[in-house]
Amino acid sequence: MSLTPEQLAEIDAQRATTTPTLRATSAGMEGRLYTAHPVLDHGLVRVIDYMGDDAAICQAARVSYGKGTKAVSDDRGLIRYLMRHWHSTPFEMCEVKFHVKLPVFVARQWIRHRTANVNEYSARYSILDREFYIPAPDQLAAQSVVNNQGRGQVLEGAEAARVLDLLREDAMRAYDHYEDMLTPDEDAGKLGLARELARMNLPANIYTQWYWKIDLHNLFHFLRLRADVHAQYEIRVYAQTMCDIVKDWVPQAYEAFEDYRLGAVSVSSKAKEVLKRRLAGEAVTQETSGMSKGEWREFVEEWG
Amino acid sequence: MSLTPEQLAEIDAQRATTTPTLRATSAGMEGRLYTAHPVLDHGLVRVIDYMGDDAAICQAARVSYGKGTKAVSDDRGLIRYLMRHWHSTPFEMCEVKFHVKLPVFVARQWIRHRTANVNEYSARYSILDREFYIPAPDQLAAQSVVNNQGRGQVLEGAEAARVLDLLREDAMRAYDHYEDMLTPDEDAGKLGLARELARMNLPANIYTQWYWKIDLHNLFHFLRLRADVHAQYEIRVYAQTMCDIVKDWVPQAYEAFEDYRLGAVSVSSKAKEVLKRRLAGEAVTQETSGMSKGEWREFVEEWG
Amino acid sequence: MSLTPEQLAEIDAQRATTTPTLRATSAGMEGRLYTAHPVLDHGLVRVIDYMGDDAAICQAARVSYGKGTKAVSDDRGLIRYLMRHWHSTPFEMCEVKFHVKLPVFVARQWIRHRTANVNEYSARYSILDREFYIPAPDQLAAQSVVNNQGRGQVLEGAEAARVLDLLREDAMRAYDHYEDMLTPDEDAGKLGLARELARMNLPANIYTQWYWKIDLHNLFHFLRLRADVHAQYEIRVYAQTMCDIVKDWVPQAYEAFEDYRLGAVSVSSKAKEVLKRRLAGEAVTQETSGMSKGEWREFVEEWG
Amino acid sequence: MSLTPEQLAEIDAQRATTTPTLRATSAGMEGRLYTAHPVLDHGLVRVIDYMGDDAAICQAARVSYGKGTKAVSDDRGLIRYLMRHWHSTPFEMCEVKFHVKLPVFVARQWIRHRTANVNEYSARYSILDREFYIPAPDQLAAQSVVNNQGRGQVLEGAEAARVLDLLREDAMRAYDHYEDMLTPDEDAGKLGLARELARMNLPANIYTQWYWKIDLHNLFHFLRLRADVHAQYEIRVYAQTMCDIVKDWVPQAYEAFEDYRLGAVSVSSKAKEVLKRRLAGEAVTQETSGMSKGEWREFVEEWG
Repeated sequence: MSLTPEQLAEIDAQRATTTPTLRATSAGMEGRLYTAHPVLDHGLVRVIDYMGDDAAICQAARVSYGKGTKAVSDDRGLIRYLMRHWHSTPFEMCEVKFHVKLPVFVARQWIRHRTANVNEYSARYSILDREFYIPAPDQLAAQSVVNNQGRGQVLEGAEAARVLDLLREDAMRAYDHYEDMLTPDEDAGKLGLARELARMNLPANIYTQWYWKIDLHNLFHFLRLRADVHAQYEIRVYAQTMCDIVKDWVPQAYEAFEDYRLGAVSVSSKAKEVLKRRLAGEAVTQETSGMSKGEWREFVEEWG
Repeated sequence: MSLTPEQLAEIDAQRATTTPTLRATSAGMEGRLYTAHPVLDHGLVRVIDYMGDDAAICQAARVSYGKGTKAVSDDRGLIRYLMRHWHSTPFEMCEVKFHVKLPVFVARQWIRHRTANVNEYSARYSILDREFYIPAPDQLAAQSVVNNQGRGQVLEGAEAARVLDLLREDAMRAYDHYEDMLTPDEDAGKLGLARELARMNLPANIYTQWYWKIDLHNLFHFLRLRADVHAQYEIRVYAQTMCDIVKDWVPQAYEAFEDYRLGAVSVSSKAKEVLKRRLAGEAVTQETSGMSKGEWREFVEEWG
Repeated sequence: MSLTPEQLAEIDAQRATTTPTLRATSAGMEGRLYTAHPVLDHGLVRVIDYMGDDAAICQAARVSYGKGTKAVSDDRGLIRYLMRHWHSTPFEMCEVKFHVKLPVFVARQWIRHRTANVNEYSARYSILDREFYIPAPDQLAAQSVVNNQGRGQVLEGAEAARVLDLLREDAMRAYDHYEDMLTPDEDAGKLGLARELARMNLPANIYTQWYWKIDLHNLFHFLRLRADVHAQYEIRVYAQTMCDIVKDWVPQAYEAFEDYRLGAVSVSSKAKEVLKRRLAGEAVTQETSGMSKGEWREFVEEWG
Repeated sequence: MSLTPEQLAEIDAQRATTTPTLRATSAGMEGRLYTAHPVLDHGLVRVIDYMGDDAAICQAARVSYGKGTKAVSDDRGLIRYLMRHWHSTPFEMCEVKFHVKLPVFVARQWIRHRTANVNEYSARYSILDREFYIPAPDQLAAQSVVNNQGRGQVLEGAEAARVLDLLREDAMRAYDHYEDMLTPDEDAGKLGLARELARMNLPANIYTQWYWKIDLHNLFHFLRLRADVHAQYEIRVYAQTMCDIVKDWVPQAYEAFEDYRLGAVSVSSKAKEVLKRRLAGEAVTQETSGMSKGEWREFVEEWG
């Protein structure tokens, strides 16, 4: 992450002055506000604003006139109950707004989560910066031989070096040509290509930025899918950074999320049957399980 | 509106203590927070929380590192530009959460706006209060003779008195029976009907309550439709109360909303043609306008 | 369910004529189209239209030019894989449109599912029919003594009779007064109350109707929550009717839904730990489980 | 557009066989189904499925048991009324599913419309084809000098030739390197980079494909914004192709859309005041209009 002195000064200015408010405030989140949390080589996550805290979840669940909280321990129990029984609307009552800088190919995965508000830096209107994601050596992985959409072992030696060279050189050359096409030159009678066209030359590892705003229920859904071990590494690191932030913001809700979603597992009706037979002492095999080979393999990975 | 002393004390407690925050703060909205704004005979609107201010709209539009604002006058111009050109995403970056008490038949219209978060007081779980909307005499209107879904002249004398009597008596009787069915009586071997069933006896003018959270863009859409003169009076008064609140919250955005949405009019391609012919001095009639009688009547109402 | 001869004739007319189409067609769904499936005492569910079939799910998943299907058995495996791994977008590629007649208090629960299209019969514009839901005797249940939002034992004898009398009489009286208020009487100088006002006198067990359109992914989400044993009986019977219909429409997707959603159970990280200890032969108690009493009770209900 | 013989055969097969259906059918849309409509140099739009027709809009608006149509002329009037008065839900009752092939930078604009279902070809799972958008010479435009996000005059001579060369060469080289990085070579000890990583080298003019499903109301919203003269040319041509298709599908709804949306103009409260003063014979200038210079310029462009 390489912020300019001007950007750092703007962030410092935002963190310098507090204003009194009557609103619910989260001390953990105030500590996070505006600061740039680095992700990947040039990416970042910043919290720009938030609404609500753990107590606000309970207040909404109770549709109360006041704070809706009796004791912190009551709130914890209520939050766990709501999460366990899939009551989503109280969690929708908290909201958070992030500023994210991320490679375009990550942005394209991310945007598939539609229940959020997005304002992206416009390459029709502005010129993008010369910043590209180049994987760290330990993330330069081969295609998985068992999973069609996963990674296998790490590339090494000449192959790794060549991949990094190609990625770097192609990015630099594409950006040089982008600038060249854009730039007018009156003397040479050169007009300069429209920005909305020139951008098409830029590869998917260029960084873009956006403001992204989402409620806590939908954020948890995003995090469950994207902080998962099967998610692509380059989006997972963003999700993990946001997990840390959410933990500081709404610690009780995050604890329930970890227990009932992130660390939980869905057991199919067939798998439930097998587990019950096992608990009763029976030795079940794939053949007697009623599951396909693929299901059985995934079942054994989970349950041994 | 009839708040209990406990409810008033809870509201006072919420307004008593401020906390320092690094977040964007709207002075106008801080003045509104938690206070119960009365609507109809027992209804209310309270702001529970908000996120963002006028500057936050510009900050998101510019995807900026800092406040994103140069001068207040620049922000005003940008906000008007965004509104005029239907850029919706920057307005989605502000959010507000209301506590609303409203009759069920109003709630049923309201909920048709789906892009919002709602947590309603549950009549499966809790017992509703004995509070019913009874129209004020000047709102006791006859069916319109020109508009199938509108009101005509105000009822008077015996008819008005009888309607009010019927509404009041049926409400009270229904509530008496609701309570009766609900209440167990061990001595009499009476179990008490389940709350989720007993509620079916209650008429649509009983009050319910909910927490309702929405972004500014979708709120403007709601207000444009529901603060409109064609909206039913009983929802319009809620919309108007919220218009006053939004004006204090984001005065620049509200001014643009008034000019480009609330006070604006959509001119069809046919109507545009007619206006241009008129501006060129031609006298156009319905026959030469290409419009149907209904369209022409609406056109003349708007343009003379 | 009591359809008028005109309504029955309209349904017959809709079922009388086929048209050739190039679109994907589901034989099971063609057999269901338009027919009124009765629910509760006066309610119904009718399929008005549908888009897609099992093969269409696979075709979308493969973004293919043709039918996207090799063999029916391949499709089944792919559909199970997609459901197991929470790939939701291919299931969104099927759509269904229902005509539903249902009591207002059921409609109010139903509408909380926002990712659907709804067009409800307007009581501002039209006059509602005199049809009310009155529970069958075996559904006249007391408040549960263990669950704040559930039912307990069935009411009997005098209490049951009295509840049914109150519900019937209040409904009839409310409707009489609704009609009375609405009806103008020129001779008596009576104007007739506006429909948008008169409707407020009607109780929540009156029937309304709507067209409801939803994609298969979101329908499965609705069915998982509403066909569940914890859902209120009066909405559950609608969900069950729709389950039967969906099973005829997309049998492979429905089978996967049954296995991985409807009959599945979510196991929290704590519960997973306990199950693993049990599988290893350990006897775990609530005290040694790390779970609260409430969680433990629910765990034991599920796993013994 | 360059379809393979296999793809053409698949399309022919889809168009070869009809099945009888009881559903509403649109003759105009049956004529369009499956056929690839070419857009740009390699793009296409295909209709994969549809639900509903003009009569279905009216049927939903009336919540009727039968077809809901008396006479075609009645339907036309009702549809125009619904469109004029912003009744959106009846139009949501029609649905359409497209297969679209489009450059990635167009896909990134397109996806900002969130109220739709999307299934995109996965470059994590599969290898993209070597197909890139290269603008036709008459679309190779300079940056606009008046509009920050628009195009100005067309590039000519050496500048145009050089831009086309750069775009072509960079695309070919990026694809060569993409293939090179992907491809394992056992003899050379080369593993081949994971597909989810290699794709980051590809520029934004590469073609992707998706299945895109949307209801008619939201499609009209998309078309109003994207078929507009201010939309970028490369997305506008897709919107225009879809306009032609929709016109064949629901001719009455499309006619109303053209009149009340596509060809309509929104007149602000200030502009309305100016128009009324002009109609009354007054000569209004920017200074006396109350509008800013920017607004006045846009006003004069529209109204002279």
